[in-house]
Amino acid sequence: MNFLSRPDQYKRALDISKRVVDIKRKLGLLDTLGTDIYRALYCEIPIVLHDLVFGGCLRSLASDEQLAQWLPNVVNYRWLGSYAQTELGHGSNVQGLETTIHYIVCTFIKETDEFEINSPTLTSSKYWVGALGKLCTHAIVFGQLMLADPKTGKVRSYGPHPVLVQVRSLEDHMPLKGIVVGDIGPKFGYNTIDNGFMQMDHIRVPRTNLLSRFFSVTRDGVYVPPPHPRLVYAGMVGVRVHLIEESFTALARATTIATRYSVIRRQFTDGPNGSLVERKVMDYGNQQNRIIPGIAASYAFLFMGRRLGIAFYSMMDVIKRNGDTSSMAELHALSSGLKSTVSYITARGIEDARYACGGHGYSEASGLPRLYSSYTHIITAEGENNILPQQTARILLKIYKDAVLNNTAVPAGPTTKYIVQELACPHTTLAQYMAEHGGNLVSIPNLVKLYRHRAFSQVANMARLLQEDPDVPMMERWRQLNVEAQRLSDAHCQLYILESFVTSLASAPADSLAALTRLCQVYALTHIDRSLADFLEDSYLDRSDIEVVRKGLRSLFAQLRPDLVGLVDSFNIADHTLASAIGRYDGQVYEAMLQYSLKQPFNSKPVVDGYEEFIRPLLKSSL
Amino acid sequence: MNFLSRPDQYKRALDISKRVVDIKRKLGLLDTLGTDIYRALYCEIPIVLHDLVFGGCLRSLASDEQLAQWLPNVVNYRWLGSYAQTELGHGSNVQGLETTIHYIVCTFIKETDEFEINSPTLTSSKYWVGALGKLCTHAIVFGQLMLADPKTGKVRSYGPHPVLVQVRSLEDHMPLKGIVVGDIGPKFGYNTIDNGFMQMDHIRVPRTNLLSRFFSVTRDGVYVPPPHPRLVYAGMVGVRVHLIEESFTALARATTIATRYSVIRRQFTDGPNGSLVERKVMDYGNQQNRIIPGIAASYAFLFMGRRLGIAFYSMMDVIKRNGDTSSMAELHALSSGLKSTVSYITARGIEDARYACGGHGYSEASGLPRLYSSYTHIITAEGENNILPQQTARILLKIYKDAVLNNTAVPAGPTTKYIVQELACPHTTLAQYMAEHGGNLVSIPNLVKLYRHRAFSQVANMARLLQEDPDVPMMERWRQLNVEAQRLSDAHCQLYILESFVTSLASAPADSLAALTRLCQVYALTHIDRSLADFLEDSYLDRSDIEVVRKGLRSLFAQLRPDLVGLVDSFNIADHTLASAIGRYDGQVYEAMLQYSLKQPFNSKPVVDGYEEFIRPLLKSSL
Ligand SMILES: Cc1cc2nc3c(=O)[nH]c(=O)nc-3n(C[C@H](O)[C@H](O)[C@H](O)COP(=O)(O)OP(=O)(O)OC[C@H]3O[C@@H](n4cnc5c(N)ncnc54)[C@H](O)[C@@H]3O)c2cc1C
Ligand SMILES: Cc1cc2nc3c(=O)[nH]c(=O)nc-3n(C[C@H](O)[C@H](O)[C@H](O)COP(=O)(O)OP(=O)(O)OC[C@H]3O[C@@H](n4cnc5c(N)ncnc54)[C@H](O)[C@@H]3O)c2cc1C
Repeated sequence: MNFLSRPDQYKRALDISKRVVDIKRKLGLLDTLGTDIYRALYCEIPIVLHDLVFGGCLRSLASDEQLAQWLPNVVNYRWLGSYAQTELGHGSNVQGLETTIHYIVCTFIKETDEFEINSPTLTSSKYWVGALGKLCTHAIVFGQLMLADPKTGKVRSYGPHPVLVQVRSLEDHMPLKGIVVGDIGPKFGYNTIDNGFMQMDHIRVPRTNLLSRFFSVTRDGVYVPPPHPRLVYAGMVGVRVHLIEESFTALARATTIATRYSVIRRQFTDGPNGSLVERKVMDYGNQQNRIIPGIAASYAFLFMGRRLGIAFYSMMDVIKRNGDTSSMAELHALSSGLKSTVSYITARGIEDARYACGGHGYSEASGLPRLYSSYTHIITAEGENNILPQQTARILLKIYKDAVLNNTAVPAGPTTKYIVQELACPHTTLAQYMAEHGGNLVSIPNLVKLYRHRAFSQVANMARLLQEDPDVPMMERWRQLNVEAQRLSDAHCQLYILESFVTSLASAPADSLAALTRLCQVYALTHIDRSLADFLEDSYLDRSDIEVVRKGLRSLFAQLRPDLVGLVDSFNIADHTLASAIGRYDGQVYEAMLQYSLKQPFNSKPVVDGYEEFIRPLLKSSL
Repeated sequence: MNFLSRPDQYKRALDISKRVVDIKRKLGLLDTLGTDIYRALYCEIPIVLHDLVFGGCLRSLASDEQLAQWLPNVVNYRWLGSYAQTELGHGSNVQGLETTIHYIVCTFIKETDEFEINSPTLTSSKYWVGALGKLCTHAIVFGQLMLADPKTGKVRSYGPHPVLVQVRSLEDHMPLKGIVVGDIGPKFGYNTIDNGFMQMDHIRVPRTNLLSRFFSVTRDGVYVPPPHPRLVYAGMVGVRVHLIEESFTALARATTIATRYSVIRRQFTDGPNGSLVERKVMDYGNQQNRIIPGIAASYAFLFMGRRLGIAFYSMMDVIKRNGDTSSMAELHALSSGLKSTVSYITARGIEDARYACGGHGYSEASGLPRLYSSYTHIITAEGENNILPQQTARILLKIYKDAVLNNTAVPAGPTTKYIVQELACPHTTLAQYMAEHGGNLVSIPNLVKLYRHRAFSQVANMARLLQEDPDVPMMERWRQLNVEAQRLSDAHCQLYILESFVTSLASAPADSLAALTRLCQVYALTHIDRSLADFLEDSYLDRSDIEVVRKGLRSLFAQLRPDLVGLVDSFNIADHTLASAIGRYDGQVYEAMLQYSLKQPFNSKPVVDGYEEFIRPLLKSSL
C-alpha cells in the first residue's frame, strides 16, 4: 500500500471493501455493522462510512416506515451512502442559523410535494464528505429547511435538516443530472477514503425523503418539531461513541508496535564497569514514559468506551420508545467532551509511540506514520475538538448554577451528581480526606476523590471567572475564556474515564488484576502530572505532592516493566493488521526492515530516473 | 507535487536541485551554503544534504590539505555527498564502544596504506542516510577505526571515525563494486529526499581519506587523538545549529497559514441578540491560544538561532586557530538541549496551526500536513530528542556539583554562570524579588528572573534526586530519572531562548517594539503555563500566580489580536513557498480549495477506476 499512487490505493480499498461485504454475506452478518471486521483491517475503507455513518444515521433518524423501505437496500449494499453535512465554507457552525446565506437550501415545493435542494454559492458546496467523492450512490444531505411560515406565508429557515438524496445512477454510477461531485484531493492521511465535494443545482426529492423519526413536514408544509432540538444531530452522537472505540484501536496498535520494538532495540551499555551487552531501550525511564501512559490510556479507553456505548444505546432505546429525552443533555455533555479529551490523548500517545521507535518510527515500514496521520483527523472531524468541550462546559455550568448559585434542587444525573455532592464535602485538602479514609496519594480511591474534587473545582472556578468583568458582554467573556472551558470539560471527562477504569477492575481476572491496577494508577497519575496546576490551584494537593506523583509514576513504571509485552500482546492484534516491520510478533525487526527497503519498486533500477536529465548535467557542468 | 508518485516526486526534487545549482552558479554563490535559496523552496531537495551536511562536515573535520583537494569538487557539485553515520541496528549510540560487534569496521591495512571498510552483519548496514539512496557519489562513512595497538600489536577499536568513501561511479552513476545501496522506502514525510541504506564488502580507501583536521592515523598506523574527544562529532553540532533555523522556517510558515486563514474563516454569530455576521475564528480565545504562542516561538527561535549561530562559528574559529576547546562543553550542552526543546515546541506549534484550520488543515491543499510530517523528523534525527538533553543535564550537573557541592571555583561560561549566581541570590520567592526590583509577574525582567531561578532550581533538584537511594547503582538511578534530566535541560535552554528574545528587543524598530515585547511575554508566559509545577514546586511562584499567568496571556492575546496578520506578513514568505490554498496572501481561500479539488487528476474521469471490478458487483450482488 505504501508504494501505490493515491488512485491505486483507493482501488485497493475498493477491492478490500468488496471482500469485506462478501465475508459479511457468507457469515450472515449483513445486518450488523461489522466493526470487528473493520478493526482487523490494516487501512480504512470507504464502505465503513456507509455502514457506520450513513447506516447509523438512518437507524437513528429515519422513521419506521422509512426504515422498512430503505434499510434492505442499505444492509444489502444495493445503495452505498454517505453523510453530507459539512460545506466548503461551514463546518462547525452546523446550526447555521438563518443569518447565513451560505448553507445549502432545501425548499419545500407544495405543488409537487417535493423538496428542492440547491447550493446557491461557492461556499455552500458540500465538502469533506466521506465516501461521497467516488463511491456513494446516496447521501444524507443536510440543508436549511425552508418552509412558508403558516401565519405570515413568508418562507423562512427551520435550520439544517437531513434529507435522503440519490447522487449517482444505480446503473452506470454516473452522477445524476444537476450534481457535480468528486474527490477533494490528497489529505494528511485517510487517503483510502474518498472525501468528496458536491454542488447541487435545483435537485428535487419527495417530501418523504426528509428523515422523519423525530421531526417532519406535513403535506401542507407545516413543520412538526422534534421532542428535543438536538435530535437532529443524534446521528453524530452515535458516531462519536464509535470514534472512542476507534481511539482505543489506534492507540493499542501504536503501543503494541512501540513496546515490541523497544524490547528488541538496544542502545548503550552501562559504561566501562557495566555489562558489555547494550540495554533494551525499554529500560530507560523516558522510554517508559513515552510508552506506558499510552498502554494505560488504551485500556482506559477500552473500558470507558464500553460503558459509554451501553449508555448511548439505552438512551436511544428510551427515546425511541417513549420520547423521554431527559438523559440527553448529560450524555451529550459527556460524549462531546470525551471525544475531545480522548482524541487529544490518543494522538499524543501515537506520536509518543512513534518517537519511541527512533528513526525507524519515521519510516512507513513501521506502520506508525500512517496510524498517526489517519487517526488525527478525529481531532477535527465530527465536532472540532476545541468547540465540543464548550458544549460540555455549558451544560456543567448550568447544573452548577442551578444547584449552587440558585440553590434550585436539580435532578443531577449519574455522571454529574458529583457537582452537588462535592459542594457538601467537608474536606478542603486531600490530606484531610486521607486522614479520615486512609491510603496514600496513589491509592485508587484517593485518586478518584482527587479527580472528583478537581472536576468540581474547575466548574466552580469557571463560574467565578465568568462573573468577573460584568461590563464585558457575556459572549465576549465566553470567547476569551474558552480555553478554561476546555479545562473544565477535560476535568469532567477524565473523572468519567477514571471511574470507568476503576469499575472494570472489579471484574478483572485475578492474574491480571495487579497489572491492570497499576495501569489504572499510571493513567490517573500521568494526567495529574500533565495538569498539576489544576490540583495545586486551590491547595487540594500540596506542592510537596508533585514529587510524590512523579515518584509514584517511576515506581509503577518499574513494577510494570516485566508485564509490558504481555499487556500489549493481550490486545491481540494480528501482524497483518499492524502491518509493521518493527512491531512483528516474532521480533525479526531488522530482517523485515531491510527486505522492505530492498524490495520497494523505487529500487528496481540501479540508477535513478532523472539521472540523465538532472544529475549527470550537474556532475559534469563545470568540467 | 501532492498528486505525484514517490519516484516522480523525487524526480521533481532532482529537477529543482539542478535549478538551484544553476541559480547559485549564475549568481556566483557556489561557495556559499545557499540556505536562503533552500528556504524559499516549497519542499526539501536532496542537494541540501550535500551542501549543509556533507559540505558542512568536511569544513569542520577535514584538514586544510584535504579541503584544498576536495572542496573544489564539493562546491562545484562534481561530487555529491552524504553523511553516513547511522546503521540499521544503531543510531543514538554512535560512540558505539568496542563492545558492539554491529558497527561497520574500518581497519587499517599497513601494507597498502589503506583502510578497509566492511559491514560484517545485517545490522551494520548503513541506514537512514540522506541523499545516499539515489543521489550521492561520495559519503562520509563513520566506521570503527581498527588499529593495531602499538604496544600489544592487538587490533582494537578507537571508536567510530569519519572516512571519505566514493559510492557511485562519476561516469555512469552505478554503485561501485562491493557496494549495495538504495533508497530505504517511503517515510512519514521528507519523501523528496532519498534516505538510503548501504552495505560495504571490504571496500578499500587510502589512509588519507580519514578526515583529519583534529585526529589522524600515521603512516605506521598510530592514532593521533583530537584535543577533545567530541570533535569527532563537531559536524553534527553545526547541523544542529542549522536545524534550529529550520525550526523557525517551518513554524513561521505554519503560523502564517493559520493566521491568514483565521481572519477569512468565519463561524458562529453572537447569537440572537448579537451581530448577524459570523465572527472571524481568530476572535476565539482558544483559536488565539492555538496560534499566538506559535508566532511568539517563531520570533523567539529566529532571534535565538542567530545568537547561537554566532557562538558556534566563533567557537569553531577559535578551535581551528589555536585548539582551544574550553567553550565546547558549554556550547555542546546548549546546542544539544536546544535542538530538543526547540523541535518539540515547533512540532506542537505546527500541529496547533494545522488544527486551527479545522477540516481544511487536514487537506494537503493547506500545505500544513506536509509541513508537519516533514518537519517532525527533526525530533528524531541528529541526536534523538530524549537522549540529547541527558548530555545537557550531565554538563550542568557537573558545574553545579563543582560550584556548589564541592565548592571548587569554576570558570562558569556566559550561559551557565547563573548557576553560581543564583545560589547567592537572597530571595526565595519572586514576590520578594519584585518587592525590591518592582514590576509585576508579566514584566520582562521578572520573567527572566523567574526563568533563571527555575533553571537553577531544576539543577539543584536533580542533584538532590540523584543522591537519594545510594544503594541503587548510579547508572540505574540515571535511567530512572531521565525524564527529570529532560526537565532540567529544558529549563536551561528556555532561559537561553528568553534571554535571546529579550536582548533582541533592544534593537527592535520603534514601531514594532510594543508588539514584539508582547510576543516575548507570550512566549515566556506560555511556557510557564505549560510547566507550572516547575515554578510552584519550591514556592518561588505562589498558587495564586496561576491565575495571574493565565489572565496575563488572555490580555496579551487581546492586545496582539490586531497585529497578528502584520506579524506573520513580516516573515515575508512567498505564496509559492507556502504552497497553501488557505494561506494565500490574497485571501481567496475557497476559490483555491475548490479549484484544487476539481483539477486533481483523480477526478479526470466521472466514474472511478475499480467501479466495474468492485463497486458494480457490490451494488448488483443481491439482485
Ligand atoms: C478526514 C475528515 C473526514 C470528514 N468526514 C465528514 C463527513 O463524512 N461528513 C461531513 O459532513 N463532514 C465531514 N468532515 C468535516 C468535519 O466534520 C469538519 O471539518 C469539522 O466539523 C470541523 O469543522 P470546520 O472544518 O468547519 O472547522 P472550523 O469550525 O472552521 O474550525 C477552524 C478553527 O476555528 C475554531 N472555532 C470555530 N468556531 C469556534 C468557536 N465557536 N469557538 C472557538 N473556536 C472556534 C476551531 O476550534 C478551529 O480551530 C470531515 C473532516 C475531515 C477532516
Ligand atoms: C528523516 C531522517 C533523516 C536522517 N538522516 C540521517 C543522515 O543523513 N545520516 C545519518 O547518519 N543518520 C541519519 N538519520 C538517522 C538519525 O540520526 C537516527 O535515527 C537518530 O539519531 C536516532 O537514532 P535511532 O534511530 O537509533 O534511535 P534509538 O536510539 O534506537 O531510539 C529509540 C528509542 O530509545 C530511546 N533511547 C535510546 N537510548 C537511550 C538512552 N540512553 N536513554 C534514554 N532513552 C534512550 C530513544 O529516546 C528512543 O525513544 C536520519 C533519520 C531520519 C528519521
